[in-house]
Amino acid sequence: MYLTQGLHRAVQQHPDGVMLVHGERSSTFAQVADRVARLAGGLRDLGVQDGDRVAILGLNSDRYGEYLLAVPWANAVLNPVNIRWSAAEIAYSLRDSQSTVLLVDDAFAPLLPALRAAYPGLRTVIHYGDGPTPASTVSYAELIAASAPVPDARRGGDQLAGLYYTGGTTGFPKGVMLSHANLISSAFGALATGYLPEFGARWLHAAPMFHLADLAGWNAQVILGGAHVIIPMFDPLAVLRAIDAHRITDVLLVPLMVQQLVDHPACADYDLSSLRHIIYGASPISEALLERAMKVFPSAGFTQCYGMTELAPVATLLGPQDHTARLLRSAGRVAPHVEVRIVDEQGAEVAPGTVGEIVASGPNVMLGYWNRPDDTAAALRDGWMHTGDGGYLDDDGYLFVVDRIKDMIVSGGENVYSAEVENAIATHPSVAACAVLGVPDQDWGERVHAVVICQPGAELSIEELREHTKTLIAGYKAPRSLEVVTELPVSGAGKIVKRELREKYWGDHARQVN
Amino acid sequence: MYLTQGLHRAVQQHPDGVMLVHGERSSTFAQVADRVARLAGGLRDLGVQDGDRVAILGLNSDRYGEYLLAVPWANAVLNPVNIRWSAAEIAYSLRDSQSTVLLVDDAFAPLLPALRAAYPGLRTVIHYGDGPTPASTVSYAELIAASAPVPDARRGGDQLAGLYYTGGTTGFPKGVMLSHANLISSAFGALATGYLPEFGARWLHAAPMFHLADLAGWNAQVILGGAHVIIPMFDPLAVLRAIDAHRITDVLLVPLMVQQLVDHPACADYDLSSLRHIIYGASPISEALLERAMKVFPSAGFTQCYGMTELAPVATLLGPQDHTARLLRSAGRVAPHVEVRIVDEQGAEVAPGTVGEIVASGPNVMLGYWNRPDDTAAALRDGWMHTGDGGYLDDDGYLFVVDRIKDMIVSGGENVYSAEVENAIATHPSVAACAVLGVPDQDWGERVHAVVICQPGAELSIEELREHTKTLIAGYKAPRSLEVVTELPVSGAGKIVKRELREKYWGDHARQVN
Repeated sequence: MYLTQGLHRAVQQHPDGVMLVHGERSSTFAQVADRVARLAGGLRDLGVQDGDRVAILGLNSDRYGEYLLAVPWANAVLNPVNIRWSAAEIAYSLRDSQSTVLLVDDAFAPLLPALRAAYPGLRTVIHYGDGPTPASTVSYAELIAASAPVPDARRGGDQLAGLYYTGGTTGFPKGVMLSHANLISSAFGALATGYLPEFGARWLHAAPMFHLADLAGWNAQVILGGAHVIIPMFDPLAVLRAIDAHRITDVLLVPLMVQQLVDHPACADYDLSSLRHIIYGASPISEALLERAMKVFPSAGFTQCYGMTELAPVATLLGPQDHTARLLRSAGRVAPHVEVRIVDEQGAEVAPGTVGEIVASGPNVMLGYWNRPDDTAAALRDGWMHTGDGGYLDDDGYLFVVDRIKDMIVSGGENVYSAEVENAIATHPSVAACAVLGVPDQDWGERVHAVVICQPGAELSIEELREHTKTLIAGYKAPRSLEVVTELPVSGAGKIVKRELREKYWGDHARQVN
Repeated sequence: MYLTQGLHRAVQQHPDGVMLVHGERSSTFAQVADRVARLAGGLRDLGVQDGDRVAILGLNSDRYGEYLLAVPWANAVLNPVNIRWSAAEIAYSLRDSQSTVLLVDDAFAPLLPALRAAYPGLRTVIHYGDGPTPASTVSYAELIAASAPVPDARRGGDQLAGLYYTGGTTGFPKGVMLSHANLISSAFGALATGYLPEFGARWLHAAPMFHLADLAGWNAQVILGGAHVIIPMFDPLAVLRAIDAHRITDVLLVPLMVQQLVDHPACADYDLSSLRHIIYGASPISEALLERAMKVFPSAGFTQCYGMTELAPVATLLGPQDHTARLLRSAGRVAPHVEVRIVDEQGAEVAPGTVGEIVASGPNVMLGYWNRPDDTAAALRDGWMHTGDGGYLDDDGYLFVVDRIKDMIVSGGENVYSAEVENAIATHPSVAACAVLGVPDQDWGERVHAVVICQPGAELSIEELREHTKTLIAGYKAPRSLEVVTELPVSGAGKIVKRELREKYWGDHARQVN
């Protein structure tokens, strides 16, 4: 199979159905196929050869969707850039991938001088915004209008489809090489569960489309031949409006976004009854938030997805029927396409209930890291992707992610997984959000430290938090210090960026573990 | 992925769930995994090497299911033999595949002397029946009891998984080589439609398990980790009892079987409300039968599946919502994993509405025919499987199969597709079943001839049939002669065997076309 296959199938079955909606623009499957064939022709005319990397940097757009189809159509390689990065990081990923063509929108066009200065290899920039075409760029609209359509290369299977730079919370970005088969097998495995879109679904792209979480939904919808409604970026009111106006059935969010939706004062003014599936990732959802969200979206089932870019991305899913108090902190069960095991430091599988590293094997495991054979060899051993996440499986195959292996806190000689402490803290009624990290301590080596956002009007003391936490987990895991804040640093994927928190405490230490 | 992967996943998630039920026997996923590991060990002890073919000949059984898992577990190749064949044909397929080991049950053990005489290469026979172990065979139960478990070979992807001899209605049997990826991609493509089993499904194996139609259901259920209830062969009462007793959710049948179920006098005595999906193949269902069947199985959706062994096997599906009068003669729409086109004799794609040969491409297309490079090259051209079926796609991508290309009747210089005539005849209220073929004719070259089974108590004349047919299709397509019979020859897959009908009329002709 190949990434554009679903588009051909949809043209065969419902050419005049609406495929892409963005603001006032909408286009049918037949129109998209024509535009994509022309854009692919334009890319080839601009000198793009088989396997060349074509990058994109911008907000969500129907044109972002066309890019996702035209690049494989032209037998080139996708490179969707993380929009949360600095110019230096973006230039790094363009240079590392040797992308010669970049698509950019109005929002990111101002970065062009800096990008060009930092990476002179950028041969062509295509401007896909609605504003005036910046100097030295090619107009997206004119390119499509002026280019003759080319036939779809129809190349897929194990061929490289894209480079997806990990916007991880630690380390230097790495280009994850995913094949067509990687992405498609993940989509089919997830679809087989019945937790994701069905025929006739309308998916709202509210999370950033560069990220493989929302891209996974894109791929599933393209396979099914469904409709995509696209808003430039997450905005609670825009999401509520879009659900109502377009009878949205499926959306991917992170729990922080769900919270903003249910907290929005205009929430009750919109008809949200079309929603069937709310897929969320990045972190579990709290019981309190889930209860409120189920009232706001009574027709929707909630599914948590755990995975990573290197798994294209799905590994486990917590389906709607598993959203019980006992399982809410679980990442769910292994999806049908993939195998997940927990292994010790020697790579031996451990018994259920025992914490170890989460490893995964299957047709969705990446080809490797671009130009990084050593990193690839370290991550892929005997066909198993070593996720770097710590966790355990219970007797029923539910996965509980306890922490990044490397984020483990060693306090007084005991291993403490910060996610476990966070889960305990999150159950306190005053807590809206929290992060736990190890900070340097004279007595303990590392001390368990909590950073908390309180619920509106609520207060919290370290004594009260310790007492509460100790009712749930061992005393040595309970936080010994607390900072109440109004904001936590969040990554493009909606994850709390602990690295930034750590820098505050560890800034003058050479290593961030003691 | 690999064929046994779902078994491991199920053991991880619900080891004590019931996987196989057959008569009084039932076994859990953990028990099946243990037995399969021992059977695989036993096969290796018997000298089975990587890639060796291991055949099975027998009725449906839980042990048939264990065979389907143990052979790939042992890194050998499946060869499920068509139980409708003569001893000579069976020996042919064993010899052609060079199968060295054969599993056989009580029903087929009597064929052993003839098989051994015709194919001396048969080194080992394993008897999996409940009766006494025949001379010179190994007891299945003793083999499992005596053998140490071996680890799963975990080999899959493009590796050969099995030889599936086409029990086609024409020509010499050919061994279709299917890989793990072929079978799994077909299953995932079908599962993505939502027309097939879901988590928690209980599949009734009533159609013969050697045939890829029911085997496709087996594969889908193994992937999902569902339960299999198995009866030795189709029997209307046994099916009704099993649905009631085991709360069956999914079953694959052919329309003739559906008819026998709804006609059965005890039908109303059983609780059939658990049924969710009735998947049928081999031929479309008549409107009259569908109406009756929907009353008998009010909770079930009907899905027609069109495919072939060479496509592992799914190509198109007609889902429950498409069971309308207009679409009932259609084979449905192309499934998400595969591409289907209609091409002319030069291989060029034709416009919607135009009849041509149905061709398919995708990850489900067979590796080729075993030891038949010429046949493989004729069938697989540029990656497209040439099905030999004639048909057209309408403007909405619905496939209508009009006939085997080679079954086309040329009458008075006009091409007549017999299926189109059969569809017209089937709408006559007196007709229970029919077949149309070309027979030699002085005037017309070939004459359109109808063979009909009448409804109980009904009569039919050629004049009345002609008049009726001409209200639906062109006059030259209407039958010019009629034979009313009480029985039609039916293949193991439930298809009418036209070859046998033709022999009656063409017996003294060198070719069966004029």
